[in-house]
Amino acid sequence: MAENAPERIEVGLDDRAYPIHVGLGLLQRADLYSAYLRGNQLLAVTDENVAELYLENFLESLEGSGLALDSMILPAGEAAKNLQTLECIVDRLLERRYNRDCTLVALGGGVVGDVTGFTAACYQRGVALLQVPTTLLAQVDSSVGGKTAVNHSRGKNMIGAFHQPTAVIADVAVLDTLPDSELRSGLAETIKYGLIRDAGFFAWLERNVMRLRAREPGALIEAVVRSCRNKAEVVAEDERESGMRAILNLGHTFAHAIETALGYRKWKHGEAVSAGMAMAADLSLRHGWLDERVAQRVHALLEAAGLPTTLPPGLAPDRLRHLMATDKKARSGKLRLVLLEDIGKVRVTADFDEALLRRTLEAYCRPA
Amino acid sequence: MAENAPERIEVGLDDRAYPIHVGLGLLQRADLYSAYLRGNQLLAVTDENVAELYLENFLESLEGSGLALDSMILPAGEAAKNLQTLECIVDRLLERRYNRDCTLVALGGGVVGDVTGFTAACYQRGVALLQVPTTLLAQVDSSVGGKTAVNHSRGKNMIGAFHQPTAVIADVAVLDTLPDSELRSGLAETIKYGLIRDAGFFAWLERNVMRLRAREPGALIEAVVRSCRNKAEVVAEDERESGMRAILNLGHTFAHAIETALGYRKWKHGEAVSAGMAMAADLSLRHGWLDERVAQRVHALLEAAGLPTTLPPGLAPDRLRHLMATDKKARSGKLRLVLLEDIGKVRVTADFDEALLRRTLEAYCRPA
Repeated sequence: MAENAPERIEVGLDDRAYPIHVGLGLLQRADLYSAYLRGNQLLAVTDENVAELYLENFLESLEGSGLALDSMILPAGEAAKNLQTLECIVDRLLERRYNRDCTLVALGGGVVGDVTGFTAACYQRGVALLQVPTTLLAQVDSSVGGKTAVNHSRGKNMIGAFHQPTAVIADVAVLDTLPDSELRSGLAETIKYGLIRDAGFFAWLERNVMRLRAREPGALIEAVVRSCRNKAEVVAEDERESGMRAILNLGHTFAHAIETALGYRKWKHGEAVSAGMAMAADLSLRHGWLDERVAQRVHALLEAAGLPTTLPPGLAPDRLRHLMATDKKARSGKLRLVLLEDIGKVRVTADFDEALLRRTLEAYCRPA
Repeated sequence: MAENAPERIEVGLDDRAYPIHVGLGLLQRADLYSAYLRGNQLLAVTDENVAELYLENFLESLEGSGLALDSMILPAGEAAKNLQTLECIVDRLLERRYNRDCTLVALGGGVVGDVTGFTAACYQRGVALLQVPTTLLAQVDSSVGGKTAVNHSRGKNMIGAFHQPTAVIADVAVLDTLPDSELRSGLAETIKYGLIRDAGFFAWLERNVMRLRAREPGALIEAVVRSCRNKAEVVAEDERESGMRAILNLGHTFAHAIETALGYRKWKHGEAVSAGMAMAADLSLRHGWLDERVAQRVHALLEAAGLPTTLPPGLAPDRLRHLMATDKKARSGKLRLVLLEDIGKVRVTADFDEALLRRTLEAYCRPA
């Protein structure tokens, strides 16, 4: 069923509008995605893990399309997300004489999507980009919305651009080979959508989290579709993160501080986001903005998803508070946090109580 | 007179609209440009030549503004226009904790404007940019229109973005210290505007070219204003170079080939553009699209401006033709040229006669 009629979500951005297709077995459906390729030159960028599993599949489906096909395999992992990788991709594009009218395909997880997306944003001031996310995290979050970036040694995602893809092709079949920790990391972001604006989806997740962990395709499709629909609606209202899009950062200011303090290796992004959402719930509770029973539901779902709701030992409250202040979203020095009022209802505010934040940090930090 | 009432040209780009101010002594007019600074942190990027002459002036005028002021001095010259320089500027911004709500000021010529502009486009996915061009070329061309880029070892301007400034402040007083060759290089672009769409301006240039070469402020203001007005109108109609903006490339496809063949050192950009426009006129003549007397007027004005209308010896027609094909504007492999039908009237076409192009190239290339 799903194979024949993939779900389609529109990201409404006027002249930059594009669809997200979600389904089973889409990677080989060149009939579906060839409409989103520009020009007659295509470069698929992927990493060594994904290449081994899916690159051939993907390229084979495009044989006979008349496109000049090329691919480039990056080392797996966050370390590849830098300007040097961008320069290498550009080198290949120039060596093979790719002109402006070409397409880059990001076949992979968040790192591949971000660095390929940013390269597409910059190469000759912008070429077409097709996102083919292969992790749950990338399917429900990073591939949608046009944010692209590379890291600087002083901070994550500090050099980037908004560059919308021509389409996102999310094939849940590829999630079959995803490590468990990666799957859970993606679940953290799906739970986030429920928390920030979709109580019905949150309740659905409470009922279906075990089906998701068992990777039932039907459940995965439903989770990806509902997540993408939420993200698409937010992005359509606030493409460049001037206001409303901030709600997508629920848990993320905490998470970025945790990730920086831990050195980005120990935890997956989604794990840090999970702990960050737990901390946001805790801080909301301390302000009296969130009901205790609701906070417990948040904790329970995160735990049912196999996600952490506490921090690893050895982190210091001062250090975390300092790192939160350096977050990219701290506009003009004033930290704004996304806090919770209910399932599906957030409060974005710079008017939180610093002493209560202190207590949350102290409650979560334990000695090593 | 000019000091009190600078000329103002609007670049009409909806929510990205901005003004160009042209006048004498604007560099010290913080009252004029402080409206275009965002946040409370400012980084002025300049090069060693400009820093010595104007950096203190500029920063002094902002003292007492309450802004945190910082500056960064790049080595002069095209070699600084690369990703490493961008990374260095970002390093400074992160070290000093610049958040998204800050302003980069590009105080300098085209290189400073391009690399600072691209950094502003990318830093945290985009921060405010004030262009303060200090060469005639930058005032009439590169600072206006939002094109920013750095070079790749395989090609110029291959990595970049469209990023509109909050304003352009063009102070003709700073042109006083410009080397003669730089002034002439800027004149080539002013002549281009006359040729592509403003016969009245072309005629004005014929009458006033000597006043410009003598750097009379009134003439310089007039030339900058009329050039910027033309560029602003073109950019407003076609911000991202999907069509009409192509006319701005008159002479440039030839010029880029010449510059690459010469190694970017021997000639200034404007000199290559001048020879390129002469070649475009020659090719138009050979097609019968341009009248001989008009072609002679083109040559005469370029020569009166002290610009070359022939190529240095030692270039080969085949090599130039090959380099023209690798130009960024060659969409899907088909080279389009901007040719002339009259003063103020161009024909953008891929339908030129390859044999006639060959003859133009042979006529201009001489043995070493």
